[in-house]
Amino acid sequence: MRRRAAFQGELGAFSQVAARQLAGDDFIPMPMQSFEEVFVSVVNGKCNCAVIPIENTLHGSVHENYDHLLKYDLPIRGETFVRIVHNLIARPGVKFSQVRRVYSHPVALNQCRRFFEENPQIEKTPFYDTAGSVKMMMEKWLTDAGAIASSNAAEIYGARIIRKSIEDDRENFTRFFLLERPKRGARNTAPRAAKRFKTTLVFTTRNLPGALFRSLSAFALRDINLTKIESRPLRGKPWEYLFYLDFIGHVEEPVSRNALNHLAELADMLRILGCYPAGE
Amino acid sequence: MRRRAAFQGELGAFSQVAARQLAGDDFIPMPMQSFEEVFVSVVNGKCNCAVIPIENTLHGSVHENYDHLLKYDLPIRGETFVRIVHNLIARPGVKFSQVRRVYSHPVALNQCRRFFEENPQIEKTPFYDTAGSVKMMMEKWLTDAGAIASSNAAEIYGARIIRKSIEDDRENFTRFFLLERPKRGARNTAPRAAKRFKTTLVFTTRNLPGALFRSLSAFALRDINLTKIESRPLRGKPWEYLFYLDFIGHVEEPVSRNALNHLAELADMLRILGCYPAGE
Repeated sequence: MRRRAAFQGELGAFSQVAARQLAGDDFIPMPMQSFEEVFVSVVNGKCNCAVIPIENTLHGSVHENYDHLLKYDLPIRGETFVRIVHNLIARPGVKFSQVRRVYSHPVALNQCRRFFEENPQIEKTPFYDTAGSVKMMMEKWLTDAGAIASSNAAEIYGARIIRKSIEDDRENFTRFFLLERPKRGARNTAPRAAKRFKTTLVFTTRNLPGALFRSLSAFALRDINLTKIESRPLRGKPWEYLFYLDFIGHVEEPVSRNALNHLAELADMLRILGCYPAGE
Repeated sequence: MRRRAAFQGELGAFSQVAARQLAGDDFIPMPMQSFEEVFVSVVNGKCNCAVIPIENTLHGSVHENYDHLLKYDLPIRGETFVRIVHNLIARPGVKFSQVRRVYSHPVALNQCRRFFEENPQIEKTPFYDTAGSVKMMMEKWLTDAGAIASSNAAEIYGARIIRKSIEDDRENFTRFFLLERPKRGARNTAPRAAKRFKTTLVFTTRNLPGALFRSLSAFALRDINLTKIESRPLRGKPWEYLFYLDFIGHVEEPVSRNALNHLAELADMLRILGCYPAGE
């Protein structure tokens, strides 16, 4: 049976591109309206796995998804990186000179400022989704409008790319996580085939001066490389924080185990969110 | 001449409440549409100061404002905390039983879930601003609708509170910064009258294992209390980060100076964003 992969957005969203990289071509794409629905659909068994964006090199972390990772406890089983290329897309036959309005998600419109400065005759029109704007333009037969979205979206809805890669900054990448329900009886770790693993965890410290520093010492004193730290508010304790960490290493390596035991001594709460092959 | 204080949102926004706490009653409120306009209005001299939210105990940091602090270089001169109380507000004479729709900013609607669960006859209606929803309701003479906003907003627009404090979680506080242009020739630090000072800074590390740990050692080894750490993506260097830190202390105290000199040795970039009396 083909696996069902949940993601937020319409068919053709960048998350679907990430899903292909993570789960191969052989899955049924299950687009959802919100990130929360994506998590719930895997928890309740409607979908087998989920693909969520976790951070973007220009916009930073997707903080909502950090909160969901803690709440829904779905293990991270993989990561991948997608270069975000924004294309100007129109109905087949529509010429660039005909385009008066361009629809897209506000973040995408904002990442193509130069294009709009150079083409003041074109009006920016915010829409709820990048791929959704291509879908709407096709469904409504708009011949004086364009949409900004992935090439994947153009393909899916039978639209045409009329300007490639109109984003201001080429260093625009998004990191995605693959989440899967743990199989019954299976250990919550990735297989050991990959060369390089990453582990993601979340912890809280006692509210003492130097607490974060001491927590990081568990890794620094063992030469473990941290690749990311993210703080989020701790519900019910104003101005205290949860810390999310990514480090290079497999949880079953002795050095990682020692670091985690050391951190557990210092932390009020500690949970491993996943151990997975590091993306390229 | 009365000072002009810029803030994002309509008159009656929580930022205006914060502005009163920070700048007293004697200022001209200057509502702006976006955070970027708020910063620009002080940089270009249209306003004398600005009040911006920086973090909320339920939602976390206002990341956009961290980015603007770095870009616009307006020193932080004060902080304050506002308890976010959401009230159901209607036109005078409108009874609770008449209310069919409630307008507010999506974040505010989301923070009053219990109210909507207990009152399924009332429809949540997203609007661009909390205070703006009160303004619109009054201007359009809506008699079957309410708005969720601050008591300040009810007062300003002549509306009435029909249910007080309908938020799910009472531990809902927002921290605000007061920003001011540096006066010519003045030193970029706060006066030494307050008992307790905080300093906010931003730095980048060399991309080496243990770099963040070593940076934090500048504070931990001197028993300086860090109250916040926030990471943001570094533009142009994918998967490298800027770190924003708050610590308790005045930049001119010897121990702080030593810590900052120590951090400067380790950091690639270091900038003090402000030193200000700690809020209560």
